[in-house]
Amino acid sequence: MKQSLMILSGGMDSVTMLHDFKWAIGMAVTFTYGANSNPREIQWARYHCRQLGIELVEIDLSFIGRHFNSSLLQGADAIPEGTYSDDNIRSTVVPFRNGIMLSVAAGLAESRGMKRIMIANHAGDHSIYPDCRPEFIQSMAQAIGEGTYVPIEVFAPYTHLTKVEIAERGKKLGIDYSQTYSCYKGGEIHCGKCATCIERRHAIAAAGITDPTVYRD
Amino acid sequence: MKQSLMILSGGMDSVTMLHDFKWAIGMAVTFTYGANSNPREIQWARYHCRQLGIELVEIDLSFIGRHFNSSLLQGADAIPEGTYSDDNIRSTVVPFRNGIMLSVAAGLAESRGMKRIMIANHAGDHSIYPDCRPEFIQSMAQAIGEGTYVPIEVFAPYTHLTKVEIAERGKKLGIDYSQTYSCYKGGEIHCGKCATCIERRHAIAAAGITDPTVYRD
Repeated sequence: MKQSLMILSGGMDSVTMLHDFKWAIGMAVTFTYGANSNPREIQWARYHCRQLGIELVEIDLSFIGRHFNSSLLQGADAIPEGTYSDDNIRSTVVPFRNGIMLSVAAGLAESRGMKRIMIANHAGDHSIYPDCRPEFIQSMAQAIGEGTYVPIEVFAPYTHLTKVEIAERGKKLGIDYSQTYSCYKGGEIHCGKCATCIERRHAIAAAGITDPTVYRD
Repeated sequence: MKQSLMILSGGMDSVTMLHDFKWAIGMAVTFTYGANSNPREIQWARYHCRQLGIELVEIDLSFIGRHFNSSLLQGADAIPEGTYSDDNIRSTVVPFRNGIMLSVAAGLAESRGMKRIMIANHAGDHSIYPDCRPEFIQSMAQAIGEGTYVPIEVFAPYTHLTKVEIAERGKKLGIDYSQTYSCYKGGEIHCGKCATCIERRHAIAAAGITDPTVYRD
């Protein structure tokens, strides 16, 4: 039985994981929370779930956009340009976003009789986003196991993979990365200058994939 | 500075804590999630925050009512009658509710520069609700500390108190418990037969308070 519920954004990492583990995934959940990229990402989340015949639950966390503080929630102009190693990228942190998404996914999984939740955090995120680090995922897994009636497990198989390694898996799986969306600015065309566009572009190239993405820059 | 953000429902326990720790609480957050009791509880959450001059943030988690499985979300007729020790009370569990509320509170606290979140779980909840137990609160505190940029602390000072002891604190503080709401059925008048009405009634009586609550039964 497919007893895993996966958190899916519609970006490169989670779309790769969805295909990579489709044999284990019985359901996916996607969140809209006021991020610039949400309206475009969700189209791809829906597309890949349709392709694979996986039920997708869409959950509205728009209180994040209204009450939380992050440049990711404030329109394209607020997004800094540069790589993840730059200090200014800290403004893109959405406080405890993965904690919130994992918690909601845990409650949904328990409600629907699933045994496991999956998330596509990876090694490239760690330095800037505290809620992507292995220590956090491990503590959160323990809290979720203790706080659910029939203990729900957390499975984060890309925690120690780099984005390049994820793209290499995607290459083997034959994923067309034009059917994913990454840009923090949320425009129709990827900006090519924000941290996630830079990382995406590098990973796809380093994996030896001819990048199908159109970048503005 | 008042650097604590408290999760407030408008029930006995959280209203008592709000008054008990008003010197430390800079902000409160209340959640509506489709529970029968929400519309009446929130009136008291607003009332007590107004009285104490504490900002109240109201957050809509109505996806819980739509997607989660619990008798608490299914109207008054679905609510079992009896005490917390009965097997049928398990149906009132809202999967991982405290995990979700703590996660959202953590993100909100970080966004608003608060240092600490507070929750009014207590000893009477432990046996039935896994997300009220001390082990859960401790693991969740660790996850929240690791997953936030400037680590947010979790403070749950009633974890080891019984509901009777909470009512005794309320008595000393002069709290009028008719200005709180508990009933799982959500009616205008407390039913007196559901687990939380039974527990409320017993705690108020055992603390030596003349119960101001009107019960149907």
